[in-house]
Amino acid sequence: MRWRVDLRASVSLLGTIIKYLAATMVIPLAVAVVYMEDVWVFVVSIAIAVAIGVGLERLDPEPDLGPREALVLVSISWFGVAVVGTIPYLLAGYGTQSTVGLQLPLGDGAAVILGALGSSIVNALFESMSGFTTTGATVLGEISFDRHSHALLMWRQLTQWLGGMGIIVLMIAILPELAVNGAQLMSSEAPGPELQKLTPKIAETARALWLIYLGFTVLLVILLYTLSVVGLAPEMDLYNAVAHGFTTLPTGGFSPQADSIAAFGAVVQWVIIPFMIVAGVNFALFWHLLRGEVDVMLKNAEFRTYAGAIAVITAVLSVLLFRGGAPPLELGGTTEGVTENALRQAAFQIGSLLNSTGYATADFAQWDGHTQFFLLFAMFIGGSAGSTGGGVKVIRWLVVFRAIRRELYTTARPDVVRPVRLGGQVVDEDAVRGIVVFTLLYFILLIFGAVFIMIDSARIGVELSALEAVSASLATIGNIGPGFGKLGPFGSYLFFPDSSKLLMVVLMWLGRLEIVPVLAVLVAGVEDVG
Amino acid sequence: MRWRVDLRASVSLLGTIIKYLAATMVIPLAVAVVYMEDVWVFVVSIAIAVAIGVGLERLDPEPDLGPREALVLVSISWFGVAVVGTIPYLLAGYGTQSTVGLQLPLGDGAAVILGALGSSIVNALFESMSGFTTTGATVLGEISFDRHSHALLMWRQLTQWLGGMGIIVLMIAILPELAVNGAQLMSSEAPGPELQKLTPKIAETARALWLIYLGFTVLLVILLYTLSVVGLAPEMDLYNAVAHGFTTLPTGGFSPQADSIAAFGAVVQWVIIPFMIVAGVNFALFWHLLRGEVDVMLKNAEFRTYAGAIAVITAVLSVLLFRGGAPPLELGGTTEGVTENALRQAAFQIGSLLNSTGYATADFAQWDGHTQFFLLFAMFIGGSAGSTGGGVKVIRWLVVFRAIRRELYTTARPDVVRPVRLGGQVVDEDAVRGIVVFTLLYFILLIFGAVFIMIDSARIGVELSALEAVSASLATIGNIGPGFGKLGPFGSYLFFPDSSKLLMVVLMWLGRLEIVPVLAVLVAGVEDVG
Ligand SMILES: [K+]
Ligand SMILES: [K+]
Repeated sequence: MRWRVDLRASVSLLGTIIKYLAATMVIPLAVAVVYMEDVWVFVVSIAIAVAIGVGLERLDPEPDLGPREALVLVSISWFGVAVVGTIPYLLAGYGTQSTVGLQLPLGDGAAVILGALGSSIVNALFESMSGFTTTGATVLGEISFDRHSHALLMWRQLTQWLGGMGIIVLMIAILPELAVNGAQLMSSEAPGPELQKLTPKIAETARALWLIYLGFTVLLVILLYTLSVVGLAPEMDLYNAVAHGFTTLPTGGFSPQADSIAAFGAVVQWVIIPFMIVAGVNFALFWHLLRGEVDVMLKNAEFRTYAGAIAVITAVLSVLLFRGGAPPLELGGTTEGVTENALRQAAFQIGSLLNSTGYATADFAQWDGHTQFFLLFAMFIGGSAGSTGGGVKVIRWLVVFRAIRRELYTTARPDVVRPVRLGGQVVDEDAVRGIVVFTLLYFILLIFGAVFIMIDSARIGVELSALEAVSASLATIGNIGPGFGKLGPFGSYLFFPDSSKLLMVVLMWLGRLEIVPVLAVLVAGVEDVG
Repeated sequence: MRWRVDLRASVSLLGTIIKYLAATMVIPLAVAVVYMEDVWVFVVSIAIAVAIGVGLERLDPEPDLGPREALVLVSISWFGVAVVGTIPYLLAGYGTQSTVGLQLPLGDGAAVILGALGSSIVNALFESMSGFTTTGATVLGEISFDRHSHALLMWRQLTQWLGGMGIIVLMIAILPELAVNGAQLMSSEAPGPELQKLTPKIAETARALWLIYLGFTVLLVILLYTLSVVGLAPEMDLYNAVAHGFTTLPTGGFSPQADSIAAFGAVVQWVIIPFMIVAGVNFALFWHLLRGEVDVMLKNAEFRTYAGAIAVITAVLSVLLFRGGAPPLELGGTTEGVTENALRQAAFQIGSLLNSTGYATADFAQWDGHTQFFLLFAMFIGGSAGSTGGGVKVIRWLVVFRAIRRELYTTARPDVVRPVRLGGQVVDEDAVRGIVVFTLLYFILLIFGAVFIMIDSARIGVELSALEAVSASLATIGNIGPGFGKLGPFGSYLFFPDSSKLLMVVLMWLGRLEIVPVLAVLVAGVEDVG
């Protein structure tokens, strides 16, 4: 019995998505016009993207999307979009010092040309995938307006905004119009099981989520720009306000500033903290909040754990920093004995790393070993289901710990049958099994990734510490962004060999899609054909 | 509904076990007589152990052991035995420079006395637990006959031999005599499910396993001593032959030589390699082998995977070493460009680390970063079920990977119902669930342990790398012994704070009992009482 899937239908709908993606390039185009930068880059990019989109759509003019096709679409769409997303990077960087720009060292041998071409394409794909998966790991090397245009950096930030929730919503908005079983897609996508019950129709749900996402983004942009207007943050111009609006809510972490949020003062940092925390909350809870159902949020087991974990870990880290966990750095300043700064640095870094945003206000890669390890621990937690956060996610940890406890209890008492409960509800055994297997798979891929990166780096003579290798693997599969050591918050992934970068592209892709859909398509494909 | 368990019955049987343990102290006593060392140490130790054993037995003169009591007995016996096992260390070291000896710095304040007393007890407990759990991590600091008596070091090696299989067999041999449900104990113990079918009666099984274990030990001792007699290994005197016989088959790794097996030549190393590999094989397979059923072994899925993994990983490591993965060290010698030594060092270290023995013939803590990482990867595999090896174990990995594949497949094809198979047999779903949960729990405890050790070391000002912290956690929960960096094969765990050592004592204990029994007793106890 073969696994029959209408691949052309899936690819055709990917074409439609790419067409929409082309439309969003109008935003960086407008930035290019305003800043009088190369307009041709985005004009050509739009033309190419539209051509690809239309071409793919033609494969199947009337795509019929069943659950299997939806699964395939989910898997390939992120990859396809990331590939198309490389076009502006490659074009804008042509003939410049850009690490992600198309480089054709003319006059050299074919091997050199192909090598340089390969590296620039790999770098562009890394940056693009890092954007659309809201990872925020970068290979730009030097982040400055001298090196990159305002327009290209705005595209970089936009990819995160689109990736965070936009593309999900885009797909949910397209699919119902095609009278497709969107529920199947939803269940293999980021939003949690509760979302489907929010409103009777998927399209309405999508619209509600989209509005909440947009609302928070607009609110943050207004707040940040207001700080600038009233003189509390002169560096926060409109460009920066929009840029950080685009990358906060998707737990993205890309910033046009090389110093990330350390480029701004304490007030900006305090404003961004709650929005980072919000980005890791199940968006369905805000929908309930808007309807006045405050109880639903306050009684939600995942929300309580998420909020509690942030509070406790921030408190402990504050104490560590207050007692001297961070050296007196140029960025971030002295925290030892300074209450406000210790608390702010702790809250910012935890708000950023726990749910996978990846912004930084201090070079935590230079903190004490134990303080760094504490951050690494926080990075294992992740955001909530139905948020834009990455990682294992809080709800999975809750189920995993309850499943472990049940297993231990029934070992001692084989006579007792006990279901796993969450918020008073019995969790379906298939869901428990799926969650436990996912979490284990996450660890296995994490270790595999770390081992591969370690050996691969040694191959080209780059010495990497175990912490650097593990954090590279964790920061990409968890869609977090920065790691430790050379790949710290103000560092770069540029030095990694191309082969490691390609693996990390796959890890970011797997991580964003919560691993299972991509591998499921692969396994079903291989087993039933092979 | 309370969890009723007859604790007094369990403790009484622990008393019986301790009485048998006292009897084994006759071996180091004999060594003390031969080497004319302090005889009183073991005379007093035996007296104390017998007193404790008899005292505990009196709690319940006619213990009635049900499955629950057996579960409790399994959990407490390893701890109780480890506690009694500290007596020779504490006595022999009294008034000497020994790190594990009772130290009473008279004349100082009470706090200083209590501190020194506490540290020496913690060290002795660490060394004893490391022995009985066949971990092989040491806090002796300096291993030499100048510092420690032949008798005490023989006790140290004997604890591993007893721990590896002896204590299991001891319990299986006692319990049937008490007409107890030994099968329940077996299923919560190291030997795999196949063992119960080996012979109709548990006692016979136990005897068969005991004879196989003893047979291999005697064979190794004879081979090693023969090498000495014929002049191929003059350093391998009878003491050393017996010492290494005691610590190879239990995948123990304690050696009376500070340089471990690097103290001996290539011939000794080549002889020990196959015995280390044998120690990680399911002993039930040798029982079939003795009956001429070669097929059973060759067709066994776990054995094939175990043998295959050793072959492949050894081959890759040989190439890495041949190409210069190890600096030209005093111990181990140059491997770069030397086929025999590269192959031997690779085979020895993999044979030792993959199944958790922990011997070393080179200071692999000084090898290249990527070569070390490769070893770390091997350390995740573990031995086979029904062997003395530690770690996750090969059969679990087989089930875990098949469960993951099934999960992925059925995500793409929700219409298909597919069991997990192993060697043509359907694996019970409860067993699959138990194995997946165990593996996840292993990773969670590993990470928790590493984080605790990292933070705890920083607390007292010891700088620890991430690799050192992770390897300390892995080497103890996996009962491996050596880690990397300061705790490498020729290093020591002495520098860790007492609190970290106590955590590692718990990790060794949990790891040896495959985590679940100990925690099950704890969870059932807490939930039903609290
Ligand atoms: K991120
Ligand atoms: K060991």
